[in-house]
This record gives sequence, structure tokens and C-alpha cells, in this order.
Amino acid sequence: MHPPYRSVQSLTFVLIHGAWADTSFWDGVSAELRQMRHTVHAPPYAGHDSDPNRQATHDMIVKSVVRYILEQRLSDIVLVGHSFGGTIIQKVAEQLPERIRRLVFLNAFVLPDGQSVAEQLPPAAQAAFAKLRAASPDDTIALPYPLFRESFANLGSKDQVDWLYSLTPPEPAGPLYEKLDLKKFYSLPTPRSYVYLTEDNVFPQTDEYSFHPAMSARLGLYRLIKGSGDHMVTPRYEPGYVARLLYMGARD
Amino acid sequence: MHPPYRSVQSLTFVLIHGAWADTSFWDGVSAELRQMRHTVHAPPYAGHDSDPNRQATHDMIVKSVVRYILEQRLSDIVLVGHSFGGTIIQKVAEQLPERIRRLVFLNAFVLPDGQSVAEQLPPAAQAAFAKLRAASPDDTIALPYPLFRESFANLGSKDQVDWLYSLTPPEPAGPLYEKLDLKKFYSLPTPRSYVYLTEDNVFPQTDEYSFHPAMSARLGLYRLIKGSGDHMVTPRYEPGYVARLLYMGARD
Amino acid sequence: MHPPYRSVQSLTFVLIHGAWADTSFWDGVSAELRQMRHTVHAPPYAGHDSDPNRQATHDMIVKSVVRYILEQRLSDIVLVGHSFGGTIIQKVAEQLPERIRRLVFLNAFVLPDGQSVAEQLPPAAQAAFAKLRAASPDDTIALPYPLFRESFANLGSKDQVDWLYSLTPPEPAGPLYEKLDLKKFYSLPTPRSYVYLTEDNVFPQTDEYSFHPAMSARLGLYRLIKGSGDHMVTPRYEPGYVARLLYMGARD
Repeated sequence: MHPPYRSVQSLTFVLIHGAWADTSFWDGVSAELRQMRHTVHAPPYAGHDSDPNRQATHDMIVKSVVRYILEQRLSDIVLVGHSFGGTIIQKVAEQLPERIRRLVFLNAFVLPDGQSVAEQLPPAAQAAFAKLRAASPDDTIALPYPLFRESFANLGSKDQVDWLYSLTPPEPAGPLYEKLDLKKFYSLPTPRSYVYLTEDNVFPQTDEYSFHPAMSARLGLYRLIKGSGDHMVTPRYEPGYVARLLYMGARD
Repeated sequence: MHPPYRSVQSLTFVLIHGAWADTSFWDGVSAELRQMRHTVHAPPYAGHDSDPNRQATHDMIVKSVVRYILEQRLSDIVLVGHSFGGTIIQKVAEQLPERIRRLVFLNAFVLPDGQSVAEQLPPAAQAAFAKLRAASPDDTIALPYPLFRESFANLGSKDQVDWLYSLTPPEPAGPLYEKLDLKKFYSLPTPRSYVYLTEDNVFPQTDEYSFHPAMSARLGLYRLIKGSGDHMVTPRYEPGYVARLLYMGARD
Repeated sequence: MHPPYRSVQSLTFVLIHGAWADTSFWDGVSAELRQMRHTVHAPPYAGHDSDPNRQATHDMIVKSVVRYILEQRLSDIVLVGHSFGGTIIQKVAEQLPERIRRLVFLNAFVLPDGQSVAEQLPPAAQAAFAKLRAASPDDTIALPYPLFRESFANLGSKDQVDWLYSLTPPEPAGPLYEKLDLKKFYSLPTPRSYVYLTEDNVFPQTDEYSFHPAMSARLGLYRLIKGSGDHMVTPRYEPGYVARLLYMGARD
């Protein structure tokens, strides 16, 4: 006799959004996870959400999340990072390893020790971003609509994409160009999962430039979960589906 | 409040079939697109369909399509190419850029400037095709049944595959070996999408030899849509599904 | 008029399980195939199942299967190998080519001539397995739970994974390190298919280290079938789905 198909655990999720987003990115997913009887937190962080500081550093961002977790006295956390949020959960894990049950990367960056987000991009994309940064009056990068529509929101209808684009703030450039010391991260035994939405068109999906397998492989022993979806539309418009994938990545 | 899930645009599709096929390749997809209230054209071209000329050149093929579009006074076109048809829409786009709203490649070749279709194949396949060409009395290449069945029609039942194979004419070899000047194509700002059926077994699906990511990456900024399907059976036997994917690639 | 969607053939399947498994691996798939009116055999082999010999060689394993096929007078066989079972069906095909209608590899090793299973693994995995082997009193390799859970059984619930893990015997190490002479295999014209469950996390899914495209490409002309699933849970808990995929790989 096989055991019943599944028993559901109640988990504590802490959801860290990426660049060109704010905590509202998680509204749908949070609601779905709560309906599955999980506890959910989606903390804001420096330079984003209600903080207008365009000069926020990566360290300030990480501190926002660490402080939130400590103030809320959270423990036994499933810490989820989306996109740029992957680099944040790498650093938070270094500071609060004993509070983290598992790291879950959702189409997220996993930086090698000593590198920056920008260095992960293919050369042409690096050049395009450098140009956008140079053109900015306040050292931010604003995503041009065609790039957002074709690469970040490829599966959406025009209405969905226009709506999401209207919510997309310019991103402080600094943290994307900071090289992170991740030596401690690469010594941590924290269990980790990679949830990969396979239509994500931010990277060209080669062995060298991709969320999976390029980023995911850096996790060493990790759990792989795949689903159908893009970078920005699917998490917002199919939150029940993404919540289920995150749970598959998060459970014991 | 999110906007409604989707509003549907009415578009004008021009569908360009590939090698070892004729305009009947699009019969099902055309019917489905028309039911979605789009306008659909699937023009015949030189050396194929009712034209018996085995010596047709790539240029003659492109001229067939250009002439059709001009005669029918089509504009604001979504120009779709399947397989070898990708090379045709690359060249048509060079000649009629102002009439094309978007290019959609469906498991299609995207040739680099100065190369031929044959040069895209892995060495073993190149050798096999050269042999088939040399054995032909009229400079065509006839697909052997096992190659068609396993590589082009892998998802079909035997009945489906036998039926499709009976419709598969020998292909004029010449255009497959012509090196195309595509300098203008690579300067065009025309929006473009790549629709990728992920079980397509024509290429070995590596970074080097694949419709995606090898061909697709040449498009620069493009929209990626994926679906489940093979090269020949899915477009013919699941036309509603493929029409939906094409619409996702075509819409604004 | 298109022909009817499919006519079903009745086939004779011989199913060869992989390492860390026994013939019960196929219980569900066998039942499903039988319901589809196929004949199914899942023979035991040396060093596994009821044979306690930890010093079984790859040749002894192959002989078990060859003897079974001869004793049962099976012919016109669809010979299926899962995982390590791929190496077994490669060698059985060399010995009984006239009895085999088609080979079907299900997330299975396809060894190049002169190599071993262990040599297919990425360097870090090779080192880990060497260590596990060295630590064993009887030259077996026992899968640590975290490796099994994250890499072999990533899609399962904890209940499913714990159950499967309790059924997972230590694997005799010897055959995994034997270099196989496969010259004859690579001269055989036997039709072959590769059925690939795309969430399999045993390999990092790169061009170099993967079931598909790395292993599959060695088959030359082969039929590709894909489905959603992992290495160990999906074949056991979604046997109807896997049986359908195997049939798509097996039919004419």
C-alpha cells in the first residue's frame, strides 16, 4: 500500500521580491499560500517599496530583511527570493543561518562569490544596461517597454503587461553592480531548492546564461521544481500555480 | 483590480510553410485562426505547391511571397515562418519591412548573415543530406521514412505519420544550400517572436544545434513562447493549440 | 480526411529497472501497460532483487536478462531500460538483436564505447560516490537521504519519498565502475527511442551532463518523447502517465 498522496505541512514563508518590483509582487502568491494555511511575510527593503533612497546599497537591503526577521521573531523560515531577490537571500542566509529552514530560489540569481548581478548578463545585455544607467539622472535603470514586454512579461496579454509595466519603478542601479562576498554562503549546509518557470525570457536559456541550469547549478545539492511561466506575468496572474510550485520546493 | 484576463486583437496572419510541405500544412491552423476572427493567408511559393520547377532558387521563393503580399495589398502583417520558412520571412522582411507588424518564427530557421540552411545542421546530418541530394535524379532531397518518423513526426501515431508522410514531397535541394545575404535583416527593428514546440526532434536540442536557443538567440530582443509539440504532427493534428501559441507570439 | 487519432498496437514490453531499485519499480507501470493490452515482463537480475551477491558483475546482470528472454521465448520485444538499466539494454541488444523490435531509454544511461556509468557523472558527484563506496563494508553504495530526496525524488511529497527511500537497497558498486565494450551496440540498426522526464534532477541538465541531450544524442537517429516528471517518484506514483509515454516511444 502506498501512503496517501500528500500530507500538508504548515510553513512560514518569507518572500523577497526582485528588482523593478515591490512587495505587491507577492500579493497573489501570499494570499494563495495563506489559504493553504501557511504563514507569509513579504518584507519591504531599502531603496524600494516606501523607501525613496536611490543610493541604497546591497548591504542596506540585506539589513532591511534581517532586521524584519529579527523584529518579527521569525524562525524556521522558508526564505524565497525572486530574480534579484536571490542575491538578497544568499546574504540573509549568511547572517541568520539558524533561522532558515530552507532557501527557495524562484527564477532567481545565484551569484558566485565575488561577482555582481550585472556580470551575469550576456555581453549585449550588459552593454544595454550600462547605457540605461548612464542615461539616468539619479543612477537608476528604467526598463524600456519593449524589453519588459518581450523578455520579462512574454506570456502576458497586452492589458496584463501594460498594467504590470505601470507598476514597475526604476531600479536603483548600485546594488546590481556590487560584487558580493559570498564565501560564507558557499559553506552553509542550509537545504535549498530552485523553482524554475521555463518560459522565462530574461536570459537566453543556454548553459552559460540561464536561471537554470547556470544559476541553479551553483547551489550544489538542491531540489529542482519546474513549471510553465515567465518572469513577471505568471507569478502575478497565476499565483495559485506559483504558490503550489513554491510549496513543492519548500516542503520537507 | 487587475484588468480582464485578455482582450483579443484581430490580426492579419501570413503563414509560410517549410520544406517537405505545401500550403496544406496550414489548413488546420488557418481554420482555427479564422475562428478567432483573424484574417489568414497561406501563400504558395516557387518550387513548391503547384509549381513543378525543381530549380527554383531562394530568391524566386521570396519573390513569390512578396508578390502575393503586394497583389493582395496586405499590410500590418504578422508574418509567420515554419522551419525552412524562417529563412523566407527573414528575406521578405528585408523587402517589405513597412508592411510587417511582427515576425513569428515557429520552430524555424533563423540564419546568420552569409550562411545556408544546410550549414546549420550537425555534421552527421549534413553528410546524410549531401548523400540524399547526390542520389537524386532531379536535385531534390526525399526524406527517408525512418528519419521523418523519428525526427520530424516523433509524437504522432503510425496512422498520423503515414498519412503525413504520404503528403511529403521531395524538396528542391538548391535553396537549402544557398548562402543568404542577411545584412539588412539584422538591421531591421521589426518586432519578432519565437514560438518553440519543445519536443521538436529535428535538432539535437543543444546550445549549438537547436531551434531554441541556437536559432532564437539570433533574433536579439524577441518574445519567447513555448508549447509541447513536435515538428510536423502537432501543427497538423493540434491546430487549435498551435493557433493559440501563434496568437500569443503575434499579439501586441 | 485525417485518419482516426490512433490505433493501438499490442506490444511485448521487457522492463529493466535501474540501480537502487528492484523489479517492484515497475509494478505500477506494468499494471497500466497490461490494461492497455500489452504483454509485460520485468525480469530480476544478478546482484539485485532476490540475488544477494554483492559481487555481481555487469556481465552477470546482462546474462540474467538474456537468459530470461530466452527461457521465456520472448521475441519482437520492446526493451525498456530506466537509469542504469540503459547500460543493460545496450548490452542485451548486442546479444539478442534479432529478438528486439525497439529499445526505449527512460531517463537512462547511454554509455559511449569503453566508458563506465561513474565516468558520466560531473566531477563533484564522482568524488561523492567514490567516498560512499570507500566507506562501505561490502563494496556497495547507499544513497544518503538528502541526495535521494533532492536529486532522485524531487517531485514527491515527504510521505512518498520516505516510502520509496525505505525500499531503496544499497547498490553493488562494481558494475557502476566497469568500462563497457559497446562497439557492437554502435553498429546495430535497432530502432530506438528516448523518453525524457524533464524534472529529473540526477544530472545538472547541461549539454555535457544530462540524460537529454547528452545521453540521448549518442543514439544517433532516435525518437524523442518528453514528459513532466522526476527520476524515481513519477514512474512509481504516476504509472499511467509513464506507461502512455513509454507506449509513444514504443509504437511503430
